[in-house]
Amino acid sequence: MPLIHGGDTESYRLEYGRTPLDFSANCNPLGVPAGVEQAICDAAAHADAYPDPLCRELRAVIAGKMGTLPQRVLCGNGAADLIYRLVLARKPKRALVLAPSFAEYELALRLVGCEVIRHPLRAEHGFSLTEGLLAALESGIEILFLCNPHNPTGLTIDPTLRQRILKACEKDGILLVMDECFNGFLAEPEKHTLRGFLSEYEHLLIIDAFTKLYGMAGVRLGYCLSGNEALLEEIRRAGQPWAVSSLAQAAGIAALKEHQYIRQARALIQAERTFLIKELQALGIKVVGGEANYIFFYTEIPRLAGRMREAGILIRDCCNYDGLSRGYYRIAVRRHDQNLQLLEALSALAGVQNE
Amino acid sequence: MPLIHGGDTESYRLEYGRTPLDFSANCNPLGVPAGVEQAICDAAAHADAYPDPLCRELRAVIAGKMGTLPQRVLCGNGAADLIYRLVLARKPKRALVLAPSFAEYELALRLVGCEVIRHPLRAEHGFSLTEGLLAALESGIEILFLCNPHNPTGLTIDPTLRQRILKACEKDGILLVMDECFNGFLAEPEKHTLRGFLSEYEHLLIIDAFTKLYGMAGVRLGYCLSGNEALLEEIRRAGQPWAVSSLAQAAGIAALKEHQYIRQARALIQAERTFLIKELQALGIKVVGGEANYIFFYTEIPRLAGRMREAGILIRDCCNYDGLSRGYYRIAVRRHDQNLQLLEALSALAGVQNE
Repeated sequence: MPLIHGGDTESYRLEYGRTPLDFSANCNPLGVPAGVEQAICDAAAHADAYPDPLCRELRAVIAGKMGTLPQRVLCGNGAADLIYRLVLARKPKRALVLAPSFAEYELALRLVGCEVIRHPLRAEHGFSLTEGLLAALESGIEILFLCNPHNPTGLTIDPTLRQRILKACEKDGILLVMDECFNGFLAEPEKHTLRGFLSEYEHLLIIDAFTKLYGMAGVRLGYCLSGNEALLEEIRRAGQPWAVSSLAQAAGIAALKEHQYIRQARALIQAERTFLIKELQALGIKVVGGEANYIFFYTEIPRLAGRMREAGILIRDCCNYDGLSRGYYRIAVRRHDQNLQLLEALSALAGVQNE
Repeated sequence: MPLIHGGDTESYRLEYGRTPLDFSANCNPLGVPAGVEQAICDAAAHADAYPDPLCRELRAVIAGKMGTLPQRVLCGNGAADLIYRLVLARKPKRALVLAPSFAEYELALRLVGCEVIRHPLRAEHGFSLTEGLLAALESGIEILFLCNPHNPTGLTIDPTLRQRILKACEKDGILLVMDECFNGFLAEPEKHTLRGFLSEYEHLLIIDAFTKLYGMAGVRLGYCLSGNEALLEEIRRAGQPWAVSSLAQAAGIAALKEHQYIRQARALIQAERTFLIKELQALGIKVVGGEANYIFFYTEIPRLAGRMREAGILIRDCCNYDGLSRGYYRIAVRRHDQNLQLLEALSALAGVQNE
C-alpha cells in the first residue's frame, strides 16, 4: 500500500520510533485552535448519537461566514470525500486536470472510467496557468478541476484569466470545480475566490476545507459551495448519509469563531514565508512559487527529501507528481523555530553540495 | 432532502425545540464509554496532523481482538463508507439483497448502475431467512448482502443455513458480504459470526462497526474483514486516503479495551429485551424478532410512530422498508427507566386503541 501524499508521519514513527518535524503537509502552523479542541471534547460525550446527516447547524454557520445560503453548502468528510462523491455522482466521460496537481482529482476520475486529460503547467512559464487552458477546454470536456492557489506550486490564477475560464465553462456547460482549500491563507483571500459568483454561474462548484486553514486535518471536514442545488443533492446522495461525524460538525462550528487565530496565522505565515523564501534563495535554491502557506522550489541537491528525512524532517518530494521531473519539492511554512530547524538541515546539505 | 433512517433527532429538535428520547437508532444504551471519550479528548490536541491513512495501530488492535491478521482488516468512516467503497470498487452488474433490509446496500448498488434483486423475507415464515435464498443465488448474482442478526427483524440466520450459503457463494464466485454490525450484542456472538472462516473462504467479506456496539455512531468508525487482501486493497483505493479521522482511530483503540462496558451492556440488553418483549406482548403487540439490541414488532395501533413522536419518543416506522407493509416498527432496547417511558407512552396509545 504505497502512500503518495505528504503528512505520512506514521511511517516515519514506525521506522524511527520518534515523531518527525513535518513540512510535507500544509496545515496551519498554529495547530488545533483551543476552541476547536474544547468543542471536540464537549461533543465526545454525546457521540453515541448519530450525527445530523444534513449538518444543518454547521451549514448555516458556513453559509453566514461565506456570504451564501445554507442550501448552497454541502459538507463532507474532508474535501477529498467531496471530490470522490462528485465524480461518482456525475460519472464524467472526459475531464481536464492540471499537471502537476493534487493527485486525488485524477484518481477519483479514473475510478469511474473517465478519460483524464492533463493540461501541463510548464517550467518555462514559471508553472503559471496561461490562456492555453482555454483552448484545451474545447474538446468535449465535462469537468475541469482547478486549484487556487494551486497545489503544489503555491501560485494563484490571474483573476482576469480566471474569469475568462469561468465564463467559458458556463458557456460550454463544463463543470468548473475550483478547489479553494488554501484560499484562506492568502494575503487577499477575497481577490482570489469565486464565492461571489455562485448565483450567476450554474456550472461552478467550489471546494473548501477546514483541514488546512483551521489545523484540523485529523478531524476530517470539508465542504463545497454551488448555486446549483440539484448538483449538491446529487453529490450528497453519492455516498453514505453520515459522512461528517458529530465531532467534526462541532469542531467546524467552533472553528468559524476563531477570528484571532486566523489573523495571527495569516500574519505569521506572511512573515515566515518571506523569511523562508529569502533564506532558500540564499542557499542557491530556486523558489518557483509561494503565495499561500507553502513554498514550491527546485534544487539540484541530490536525494534531498530522503536525506532530510534521515535528519528527522519530512518535506514533500514532488517527483511523483505528473508533469514534474526530479528536483522539485514543496515545504509548508511553519513557526519560526521550526523554519530555522529546516533551514539548518537544508543548509548542511546545500553546503556539502556546494563544496 | 428526505431522511429515511432512524436516529434523526435533529429534525425533532428543530421542530420541537427539545431533545427526543430516541428508540429509532440501535446504539448501545450505555452511551459513549468513558475511555473512548477520554481518548477523543486526548487526540483532539493533535488533530492538526493528518490521520494515518492505513490506520496501522488500530488495525493491529482490531486484528488481535477479532482473531485475525492486520492485513485482513480495512477501516472506514463507519460501516456505510465501506459499503459504498466496496460497491464502487467492484461495480457489480447484478446483486441480491434481502427485503426488508438496511437501505444503504441497495442505494450504493444503484449508484453504480447495478441491477438489484430483492429476495423477500416473508411474514408467513416469521421473516426468517430460508433455504429459498440458495435457489435465488443461481442467476448470475455477483454480490450477496446479508446482515446477521438481520436489520430490522433482529433475527439471526440459522447457522446450518448460513454455512450452506457461504459454501454456495464460494463455489459460484459470489461475493458474500456479511454485515455483522449487531453481532456483539448477541448472547452468543461467536455462534453467529463468520470470522472463523476468513482463511478458508476467499469470497467472504465481513462488515462490522464500532457505531452500535461501543456507542460511537457520532464518531464514525467501521471496518471490514476478508482473507482476500487484494479485495481489501481494491476497496481502500475506491475512495479518499483519509477516510478515518485520527479521533476515530484513537476512539477505536480505546474502545477495544472496554471489556467491562461490553459485559454490562450485554447483561442490560438481555434483561431489558426480555422485559420489553413481555410488556409489548401484554399490550397486544405482536413481536416478530429481537435477539440483538432492538425489537421488531407489528401492531395495528394507527399512526403509531407519529403519535409517539408527538409524545417525545422516536421509534423506527418500518413502512419505508422494501417488502414491508404498514404496521411494522423497530425499537432499540435501552435503559430500564427509558424503556418504562416508552411502555407508558405505548400503553396510552394501545389503551385508546383497545377502547
